[in-house]
Amino acid sequence: MEFHFLGTGSGVPSTARNVSSLAVRFLQKKSTQWLFDCGEATQHQILKSPITLSKIDKIFISHLHGDHLFGLPGLLCSRSAQGAVTPLIIYGPIGTEQFVETALKVSKSYLSYDLSFIGVEEGIVYQDDSFLIEAIELDHVMPSFAFKITEADKPGSLKVEELVKLGIKPGPIFQKLKNGDEVLLEDGRKINGQQYITDKKKGRKIVIAGDTRPLQKMKDFAKEVDLLIHEGTFLAEKKEHANQFGHSTIADVAVLAKEANVKKLIINHISSRYAGDEELLEEEAKTIFNDSLIAFDFMVYKLMNNA
Amino acid sequence: MEFHFLGTGSGVPSTARNVSSLAVRFLQKKSTQWLFDCGEATQHQILKSPITLSKIDKIFISHLHGDHLFGLPGLLCSRSAQGAVTPLIIYGPIGTEQFVETALKVSKSYLSYDLSFIGVEEGIVYQDDSFLIEAIELDHVMPSFAFKITEADKPGSLKVEELVKLGIKPGPIFQKLKNGDEVLLEDGRKINGQQYITDKKKGRKIVIAGDTRPLQKMKDFAKEVDLLIHEGTFLAEKKEHANQFGHSTIADVAVLAKEANVKKLIINHISSRYAGDEELLEEEAKTIFNDSLIAFDFMVYKLMNNA
Repeated sequence: MEFHFLGTGSGVPSTARNVSSLAVRFLQKKSTQWLFDCGEATQHQILKSPITLSKIDKIFISHLHGDHLFGLPGLLCSRSAQGAVTPLIIYGPIGTEQFVETALKVSKSYLSYDLSFIGVEEGIVYQDDSFLIEAIELDHVMPSFAFKITEADKPGSLKVEELVKLGIKPGPIFQKLKNGDEVLLEDGRKINGQQYITDKKKGRKIVIAGDTRPLQKMKDFAKEVDLLIHEGTFLAEKKEHANQFGHSTIADVAVLAKEANVKKLIINHISSRYAGDEELLEEEAKTIFNDSLIAFDFMVYKLMNNA
Repeated sequence: MEFHFLGTGSGVPSTARNVSSLAVRFLQKKSTQWLFDCGEATQHQILKSPITLSKIDKIFISHLHGDHLFGLPGLLCSRSAQGAVTPLIIYGPIGTEQFVETALKVSKSYLSYDLSFIGVEEGIVYQDDSFLIEAIELDHVMPSFAFKITEADKPGSLKVEELVKLGIKPGPIFQKLKNGDEVLLEDGRKINGQQYITDKKKGRKIVIAGDTRPLQKMKDFAKEVDLLIHEGTFLAEKKEHANQFGHSTIADVAVLAKEANVKKLIINHISSRYAGDEELLEEEAKTIFNDSLIAFDFMVYKLMNNA
């Protein structure tokens, strides 16, 4: 799983950081890509990245501030101009559909693919055999959500060497054992498959948060996740200002990551006032929680499979 | 008058050309700036140019295709974030206001300045002591307009040297003569001011066209203008394709410029298929009309005052 930070700034674009967007690229499964937030010029950032519009099949919008939203119409139209035919689903707060549909209608844009909208509320947003996506509502100046991606556990693998030692040869019997069935051998021995399967591989867990003040319930939601991606708009010295505008400080989110015992924290949504001062941000984060990174535009973070 | 070509591509952004926008910067008068069209990421292009959001007080939208429109909400919000207080007026086809107001409402964006909308139809769009702006409707796949800026003629200047030779000394009498009045001197001579004023300086005329097939009436509208800025999306070999999608070829617009006897032609809205082949475009244009330029992103064209 690769995380492509397409826009890591806050509020307005600067020459250093575009407004918010994050692409998730799945390397094993098909080649699906998901987008989290879509500020203006996200499609321009994608042009300079390995992300492909036609492969994006889900877009999650955390909240409806323009710096997380205004890139949607152009991206949708360009995906169509490129001839994409696979359906696209947008998961966003109420209002997402009205904005997009008005833009498409006024501009007489007809898409080459099916576009649908699913309203985001607290709870399960999406679920299939591979992934569960849940949302919680955050504490911002408008409804804002965090998403948790929980990858399904992967079944254990058959202990082939041990079976061979018992004189059992690979063949249809191996599949039965892998299913955990009990098998009666020709020589009368009974073999219980469950004893010859390694432990399940735990699926990875990732939380991606929208704009928010630091939130107590995030400690449960992000508890022990492999990766927490969370805004940290200001340094701690701007705590009051951050609070007023519904944001977190770098220190806030580092404390949160520590208390939730996450494996890795990546901080985005950085105010443009800190351009050139990234070391200060990193220092504030790492002093509290060492496994922290300050995101930058076009940063790619690769999250490996659990052992 | 400076013309800043912020986006010279067509349809979708590429790494070489952004979607449509053109800024006009007035050097003498105050420091007003106008914008013609506002495709996505126009505000990003402005960050890399001498254009200042707060100084833009008029935006003209030629038509409502996304590549001319989708940059508006973000630009308006960033102008507000920068603390602009001067009013802004958007002149655009019906639908402009619905798109912008929906974007602002859904994103709960409150602007720091007054924003108003004026619908564009054929005829006079705007007039003050310095400028007249007229529109004609073009021939595209949706309502699309061209704008003509006609600068007011500047009054002639007083022939001071000749008056001094007549023994008349600078003073209040000069103002009367400059107004064209007849003045009775103490020695009984009558001096007619109109005989001592140079000819008026003709104001400049510029036509800026939106997307269109080549149009017969453009030859009158752009007749002898100082500068014609017109789309030429394709080479002549793609004439049928251009026509199908409501566009002009480079050759179309060069012929038009020649027949309208304009002083300078700048061609924009170039298809991304020609990236790296700009010489072919220039050759096609100049073979027909030598005073042609193919626009590129961040090109600045300075239009001098008429003598």
